[in-house]
Amino acid sequence: MASSTVADFAALRTRYRDRYEHELFESVIPFWERHAPDPEHGGHFNNLDRGGAVYDTTKHLWMQGRLVWMFSKFYRTVEARPSWLAMARSGMDFMRKHAVRPDGRVCFSMTADGRPVYLQRKIFTECFYIMALAEYARAAEESELLREAYELLETMWKWAWDWTKVGRPAYEGQTPSQALAVPMLMLNLIEEVAGDDFGTYRAEVDECIRRTALHVHADTQRVYEIVAPDGSCLDGPEGRLTTPGHAIEAGWFLQHWAQRLGRPDVQKQALDMVRWSFENGWDKEHEGIFYFVDAEGYSPVPLEWSMKLWWPHCEALYAHLLGYFLTGDAGDLAAFEAVDRYSFERFADPEYGEWFGYLDRQGAVTHRFKGAPYKGCFHVPRALWLCLRLLDEQPAWHS
Amino acid sequence: MASSTVADFAALRTRYRDRYEHELFESVIPFWERHAPDPEHGGHFNNLDRGGAVYDTTKHLWMQGRLVWMFSKFYRTVEARPSWLAMARSGMDFMRKHAVRPDGRVCFSMTADGRPVYLQRKIFTECFYIMALAEYARAAEESELLREAYELLETMWKWAWDWTKVGRPAYEGQTPSQALAVPMLMLNLIEEVAGDDFGTYRAEVDECIRRTALHVHADTQRVYEIVAPDGSCLDGPEGRLTTPGHAIEAGWFLQHWAQRLGRPDVQKQALDMVRWSFENGWDKEHEGIFYFVDAEGYSPVPLEWSMKLWWPHCEALYAHLLGYFLTGDAGDLAAFEAVDRYSFERFADPEYGEWFGYLDRQGAVTHRFKGAPYKGCFHVPRALWLCLRLLDEQPAWHS
Repeated sequence: MASSTVADFAALRTRYRDRYEHELFESVIPFWERHAPDPEHGGHFNNLDRGGAVYDTTKHLWMQGRLVWMFSKFYRTVEARPSWLAMARSGMDFMRKHAVRPDGRVCFSMTADGRPVYLQRKIFTECFYIMALAEYARAAEESELLREAYELLETMWKWAWDWTKVGRPAYEGQTPSQALAVPMLMLNLIEEVAGDDFGTYRAEVDECIRRTALHVHADTQRVYEIVAPDGSCLDGPEGRLTTPGHAIEAGWFLQHWAQRLGRPDVQKQALDMVRWSFENGWDKEHEGIFYFVDAEGYSPVPLEWSMKLWWPHCEALYAHLLGYFLTGDAGDLAAFEAVDRYSFERFADPEYGEWFGYLDRQGAVTHRFKGAPYKGCFHVPRALWLCLRLLDEQPAWHS
Repeated sequence: MASSTVADFAALRTRYRDRYEHELFESVIPFWERHAPDPEHGGHFNNLDRGGAVYDTTKHLWMQGRLVWMFSKFYRTVEARPSWLAMARSGMDFMRKHAVRPDGRVCFSMTADGRPVYLQRKIFTECFYIMALAEYARAAEESELLREAYELLETMWKWAWDWTKVGRPAYEGQTPSQALAVPMLMLNLIEEVAGDDFGTYRAEVDECIRRTALHVHADTQRVYEIVAPDGSCLDGPEGRLTTPGHAIEAGWFLQHWAQRLGRPDVQKQALDMVRWSFENGWDKEHEGIFYFVDAEGYSPVPLEWSMKLWWPHCEALYAHLLGYFLTGDAGDLAAFEAVDRYSFERFADPEYGEWFGYLDRQGAVTHRFKGAPYKGCFHVPRALWLCLRLLDEQPAWHS
């Protein structure tokens, strides 16, 4: 199958390894180290302007959890720098002191000093908190926190399939449906909490793999964001909606399980998700990956559908590199290189560090800030770190 | 004050009257008459593709109420065509049969056959329902419905200043604030329900005028979307946010009350709101009015901030023409003509009727549909109808 040779992979390493390392350790991480910490109340600011100035002191907890996870991960897997663990600890302390409520719900946003501003009727904040808790527990060697992460994972499993449990109302006219976000999030959460010790979650992992597959339709080569409970397509714009970056991210979440479980069928499905979503999501006119695409060519209803966001490109970098690493397929390599070129030309900001987050369809920066309610220390460093890990290994087709 | 002459206004009428009449009666109204009605379940579809095909059968109730209001208004003020009253009646029957709940809340979206899909934690659907009810009651001469509209207006007055009453949770860390949307909506709602019989609402109107004024800051010549209860500026992106189209719309709502009450001070404030918002909102590089602008030049957080939406341009057409009608000021005329030129070049669609709703910053159409969850039979026909009304009168500076 593999059309590439070990020499090809060595050449790839030469082209990318140092550049990614430099980007991660000289541009991205220092940006957050310098500008995120709140010296007064602890925890981290996430709303940072181009150069790092805080333009809004509101703390968004998705971002707090993700930063803690990222710095704990670096401490454990890259280098045990005390300053990295301290970054993680500060965010973890802030969350545990202020954001986690007695009923297990976690605030979406808070004032700088930790008073609640908003609580979402979704469970994402909780999931990012649990990821942070598990990774921090391992980094700081606090087994009590790891036990807590396992307990909360059980709660999430109950909430994930029925959001009325977290106050999301249900109405009679709603179409029964399933969002890709839920099984993919649970796949990642189980990986992060349990890792290789997933034995007791085997049934849950299989269930998530089964549910993810419902969104992947070979006949249209589309990954639908929302499907009927039996996997069939729904009518209307929601049913036709695809989010290429999301499907690509779900693809590599699934690929990690395919490798861990040794399941070639799942490996193929994960590759399909990534390849089809890139093919359907890449803007042939202006380059870059669309935020949303209607599977039948209608105008997607979200106003920002044609914008180019940083995170789908981060996900695509790693997903395609992983595909190439596993298969040696020239198409995966070409996709990786196209996304790399676009991202480093458009999103990277060598002058101030980190990446811009939002471009218009033509690729011009529309928002100069580096951090926002939904952009923090997460997608860029995670993708660079994951790619670096791969580039330091021998590809699967090495022999 | 007036730099214009009666001859100038006559020339303006020559340039615009027939074109606007043609646009309203040959392009916009026929589009909705042909494509909106649901022959099976009654009421109207609002999610219509460029040529009018229904791309989503979900009925969004903001749009249902607004269409009923618009066709009732045409029936009463333009021509008593039975088909127009029938359009209004069909929407009104659908709403009363399915959307209005026993507690006074009105569904935001429903299936085509009237089963609830979603209920917002905001009171806009209710307000558009009441506007529809009042105007339809007058058109159909059903005094019982008008009495009901008056009763619901009382309820809205209670809900408007405290949305926790409709299930919107309040959190300790929220900054006390007031949104421009609320007093402006109440100003328009009282105008629509009570009209010239506003005697018993005099105190409420004065209170809305007072609250609107809190958003209008002469020192920065900005109209802030959200301010502290005493009118001072709030920190952060929310406090710096301006929505030029919204402020321009609020400006003409206020101007109607200034004229009705004979208040030159309010007339001046209403003119300021429109002129400053246009000055700050007009894109000097690519033309058109931005959706959102940060008062201090930061990147607005909403992803779609730099897009050009149809409705701010509709509001600006009428607000500037009204300003010119009242003052004869050449600046108001120039603004009106700039918005007219941009709108008819970019939004109008002579081929299929109605206007496109969404353009990118450069002015290219991003969404081909004519109707959507937030775009229906409202801003375009209302603006054209209001402008036509003015063009048929003698300007204030006529003598």
